[in-house]
Amino acid sequence: MNKNVLLKIEYDGTNFYGWQKQIDKRTVQGEIEKALSYIAKKDINISGTSRTDRGVHAYGQCASFNWDVNIPTEKLPYILNNSFSGGKNNNEKQGDIRILSAKDMDESFNARFSAKGKTYRYDILNNEKGNIFHRNYAYYVKGSLDMDNILKASKYLIGTHDFKSFEASGGSPRETTVRTISDIRIVKDNDIISIYITGDGFLYNMVRIIIGTLVEIGLGKINADNILTIVETKNRIAAGPTAPPQGLYLLKVIY
Amino acid sequence: MNKNVLLKIEYDGTNFYGWQKQIDKRTVQGEIEKALSYIAKKDINISGTSRTDRGVHAYGQCASFNWDVNIPTEKLPYILNNSFSGGKNNNEKQGDIRILSAKDMDESFNARFSAKGKTYRYDILNNEKGNIFHRNYAYYVKGSLDMDNILKASKYLIGTHDFKSFEASGGSPRETTVRTISDIRIVKDNDIISIYITGDGFLYNMVRIIIGTLVEIGLGKINADNILTIVETKNRIAAGPTAPPQGLYLLKVIY
Repeated sequence: MNKNVLLKIEYDGTNFYGWQKQIDKRTVQGEIEKALSYIAKKDINISGTSRTDRGVHAYGQCASFNWDVNIPTEKLPYILNNSFSGGKNNNEKQGDIRILSAKDMDESFNARFSAKGKTYRYDILNNEKGNIFHRNYAYYVKGSLDMDNILKASKYLIGTHDFKSFEASGGSPRETTVRTISDIRIVKDNDIISIYITGDGFLYNMVRIIIGTLVEIGLGKINADNILTIVETKNRIAAGPTAPPQGLYLLKVIY
Repeated sequence: MNKNVLLKIEYDGTNFYGWQKQIDKRTVQGEIEKALSYIAKKDINISGTSRTDRGVHAYGQCASFNWDVNIPTEKLPYILNNSFSGGKNNNEKQGDIRILSAKDMDESFNARFSAKGKTYRYDILNNEKGNIFHRNYAYYVKGSLDMDNILKASKYLIGTHDFKSFEASGGSPRETTVRTISDIRIVKDNDIISIYITGDGFLYNMVRIIIGTLVEIGLGKINADNILTIVETKNRIAAGPTAPPQGLYLLKVIY
């Protein structure tokens, strides 16, 4: 019987060359396809919602694939999780990918094209001394950040805009650079600032360029009110730098 | 001029084969000696306070060494930190060792033998679902832990006891297995339980065996009052299992 299966996936991106399959490189898609293909005794290709870059993490990546193996779908997480190795770290016994759930979907469902939106979280470590334990899990910013200005600028971004200024080159072809950000929420817990961004879709590196711009605003290098001009300019050079990958987490895909 | 220099060191133990130098293995002592020897243009040997095992972390390891290079001691952290590579992880730009400070000490000082005590922290992740981001930084315990019983048992351990039941084989030769634990403090922050243990000295794997025993008590496998019998038995098999290395942090050395 042919099934269309949806996986929900958590991974620590530190030891992966990103989501997308590459020859001779350890990638999340590659590892999952290898495990599924071994079970199916034939090549299985999966369609992931977001092609996260090298170093980017996920608490709720999604991927779907066609499957005709006679195993109850709900048993797939257990079987797959036992097959994953712990990556390249010396001391790892637990793997750095985990399948959180598997379920059967309608024939028409596709993890990428059926997505109605996504929520990302971006973590910034902001203190005077840094912390090596966060080096792969947050963007370290030294110096005082004006949270009021960051909050003010983030509010301007909520809504439907042409986000061309916040798009890096090298992404997938797309019809329009207009996207809707439905929510930006900022939570500060001691020296960790977490910025949650929910939208109907994101251009290539859009979250990281938004964060890079908000950090420049927080540091006083860009005026908070200038965010509107940056959007209207529709030119990548108007925005701030691209924040590094290790602070970014794909939290949730909305269907 | 001959100087006796003390370094305070932070490291993420994940990608190290422990503190102690080994041929062809990446160790913390090995990396620091390599960097110092390069600067001195001759072999430099350092004496570390605690020979932490593979996977164990440090916020405040200490090490001392003789040094006759004409560089101001306070500049050593900057020079050394720039020389460390990021280990074996694909995406690391920041290193996994950091020298926090360097200072000149009296001739008689030795980081290991002058230590009056140490504080360790041990982190336990306790929830139903686990969390891959903690896999190298905490001991994952599933199932409900009775914190009152853990606290009660920990109080019995404070004081001067023969801790032979909490000593693994394979440690350094020592005159006595009597040690004084001056404080055990337990902090719960959501699903992370941090246990702080301060003592005048610790036997090989003593903290990890104490933690393994406290976890068994928390899970109801050992009665809290039995901790006294376990101590009095002076036999390793009376205590609980050795908790894994990745939850252990050397926080502070007391001089």
